[in-house]
Amino acid sequence: MLAEIITIGDEILIGQIVDTNSAWMAKQLNLIGVSVKQITSVSDDESHILASLTQAQERADLILITGGLGPTKDDITKKTLAKYFDMGFRRDEGALEMVTSIFKKYNRPLLDINVQQADVPDGCEVIVNKNGTAPCMWFEHHDKIFISMPGVPYEMMYLMDDEILPRIKSKFILPSIVHKTILTANIGESFLAKEIEEIEDQLPQHIKLAYLPKLGQVRLRLSASGANEMALSAEVESYAKQIMEKIPKFVVVDEDIPFEKAVLNIMKSRGLTLSTAESCTGGYIAHLITQHPGCSSVYWGGAVAYAYELKESILGVKEQTLNTFGAVSEETVTEMAEGAIKQFKTDYSIAVSGIAGPDGGTADKPVGTVWIAVSNKNKTIAKVFTFSNKRIQNIERSAASALTMLLNLLKEDGLKE
Amino acid sequence: MLAEIITIGDEILIGQIVDTNSAWMAKQLNLIGVSVKQITSVSDDESHILASLTQAQERADLILITGGLGPTKDDITKKTLAKYFDMGFRRDEGALEMVTSIFKKYNRPLLDINVQQADVPDGCEVIVNKNGTAPCMWFEHHDKIFISMPGVPYEMMYLMDDEILPRIKSKFILPSIVHKTILTANIGESFLAKEIEEIEDQLPQHIKLAYLPKLGQVRLRLSASGANEMALSAEVESYAKQIMEKIPKFVVVDEDIPFEKAVLNIMKSRGLTLSTAESCTGGYIAHLITQHPGCSSVYWGGAVAYAYELKESILGVKEQTLNTFGAVSEETVTEMAEGAIKQFKTDYSIAVSGIAGPDGGTADKPVGTVWIAVSNKNKTIAKVFTFSNKRIQNIERSAASALTMLLNLLKEDGLKE
Repeated sequence: MLAEIITIGDEILIGQIVDTNSAWMAKQLNLIGVSVKQITSVSDDESHILASLTQAQERADLILITGGLGPTKDDITKKTLAKYFDMGFRRDEGALEMVTSIFKKYNRPLLDINVQQADVPDGCEVIVNKNGTAPCMWFEHHDKIFISMPGVPYEMMYLMDDEILPRIKSKFILPSIVHKTILTANIGESFLAKEIEEIEDQLPQHIKLAYLPKLGQVRLRLSASGANEMALSAEVESYAKQIMEKIPKFVVVDEDIPFEKAVLNIMKSRGLTLSTAESCTGGYIAHLITQHPGCSSVYWGGAVAYAYELKESILGVKEQTLNTFGAVSEETVTEMAEGAIKQFKTDYSIAVSGIAGPDGGTADKPVGTVWIAVSNKNKTIAKVFTFSNKRIQNIERSAASALTMLLNLLKEDGLKE
Repeated sequence: MLAEIITIGDEILIGQIVDTNSAWMAKQLNLIGVSVKQITSVSDDESHILASLTQAQERADLILITGGLGPTKDDITKKTLAKYFDMGFRRDEGALEMVTSIFKKYNRPLLDINVQQADVPDGCEVIVNKNGTAPCMWFEHHDKIFISMPGVPYEMMYLMDDEILPRIKSKFILPSIVHKTILTANIGESFLAKEIEEIEDQLPQHIKLAYLPKLGQVRLRLSASGANEMALSAEVESYAKQIMEKIPKFVVVDEDIPFEKAVLNIMKSRGLTLSTAESCTGGYIAHLITQHPGCSSVYWGGAVAYAYELKESILGVKEQTLNTFGAVSEETVTEMAEGAIKQFKTDYSIAVSGIAGPDGGTADKPVGTVWIAVSNKNKTIAKVFTFSNKRIQNIERSAASALTMLLNLLKEDGLKE
């Protein structure tokens, strides 16, 4: 079964928000065997929405629509859907009850425009939205299904998880889609391709291999589709095994998980603890790590030491080191990493100090100069990188490089054990 | 002029990556007066790419394409463009030189598939990509412009900033598009709509008002298009002024900047400093703040105190407090906030301690329970929130609530001055 996702909202087309909904929805749909054919973002404009609905139903069987369901005048999705399906409006009692109870809960007066959120095109089935005032609407039309959901991410996610995906699974017999990802590091895309060329050339038609490079890591993704999930899985696993045996030293993990999660898993399996000492990455490494449930058994915490004073007081960096070599130096980053091990009493630490930019560079330390150190209780490895002049990129690339250095140290230490 | 953005890549349609390129490109295009009509994401599939190109050129004058230019076999954009325009291939000397120099810089052997990256459809103009091995290609066809760029964000960004946007600006006379955003907090979307209903009803046809709610904040965006930028700006400013005068106590700032940046600006203008003490947000607040250039004059740093030990050693939380009331309590979060002020010597602090989930909840403190405190040197305000059972959402909502509490304390303190 093919799906199309249509996201509606001027804010997407003027770039005010990043559409994160589509990726999340696509991932969930793929897991149940629905392929997403296209993702289309259109403005809050009636004729454009109508045209996109017409085109989508030519490409796909299932059309998932988000956005444009708010109570305010710029939101026109509901009216436009009624026009598309040539329907009138009815007030839905379940939706009205939900709107009323939400306003009661927050002790706010119910306005007319909120009551109107319970009005829906009269030919749709309403799926009550327990987390917001805009109901979800399910339309069936010429053998195609159209589902309209609010664009607020957590409302959409609950509706998908609790209502829409279960209904799709029970309504259709879906083909199996099997993905297998191998996360690699320390090797570039083209070298990887060359290493595994022979295996790639032997892949059957129904298995595709994709290379997904990002910040020094490359993800290899095998995707297979067919009727028998067990057989597909076995087949994909066998090709994955061949690939991993060809490039053992570059494989981080054979799961589609974020790099930092792979590192956390390795540390957890060895009973190791970690702390961070961040300057220019400003808490980003800590955030990457603490996104993951269960991280607390490995990650104890750390410092975001932006000011000199905090580098000294929290991490024990010597004033003299800062004054002699500067905050962005091998000496300082080494003391930061070793200070973290000592102060926070962890087995490993990561420290980063650099000039993220766009200002603050000098002739010998231009913007993008970043010192990174990783420590265990016996040694510290420090390296300098020269990234770009873009702040966010420098933060992300510093974090990725720091985690790769930690992985390499963990690998080295693992070999000794 | 109308543009369409086409992003190519299976990884988008299976939800493996979030397409952040489109929002960034849309923002830049809008700033120079190009409206984005549609954003379309399609898979690495020849017939689908061909169909999307045909449809895009019916809707738009300028088609910007990203992705599918890597050296590996899954990348077919270049071949497909050659087919679409019915062109052969030529080897581009400038592109070859760039590929060669990049491999030389990293001291790696040049493979055949890398050399082939310099092969381009023979009717296109090449824009050399200084940051990667895939060249950017500019096609003109039946009065439409098609530009194909790599999907790697920083390569695409440099090409847009340094090459494509300047070329578009010099080639066309563009209409003006003026946006004005008012960031509000502490009021819901429908109440806001009711407050400013009269002003909204008086808006002329060429000015649109949009409500963009997110995590307890609502952005109001006025958008106007026309020929005379000065006149449009004046008109939009006058409506913005009317709105702000109607709802003064809910206005955070009249700029389209992130909430935390608005808070940083207020603190900077008053010469104040800030520190953070994060448990369940795990560095996310620090990361939000340190994304912004110049934050170091306000933000000194902080602690990510995940383990009990670090709450005690870095922030001075009493062992007895943790043992008696637990880490997620008014008492602990108050000591964290006051500890941050004392240890880090800043004027204000933010502290967060909660159960982000999905595990770790208890009967009286379910997952989603989060205590937040903000302090100045004289007082601390602590509040408890009950969010959802989704970890990432809990982290984001905790950060937004903490920053709103800080803003409210800053406002209160500002009135006293």
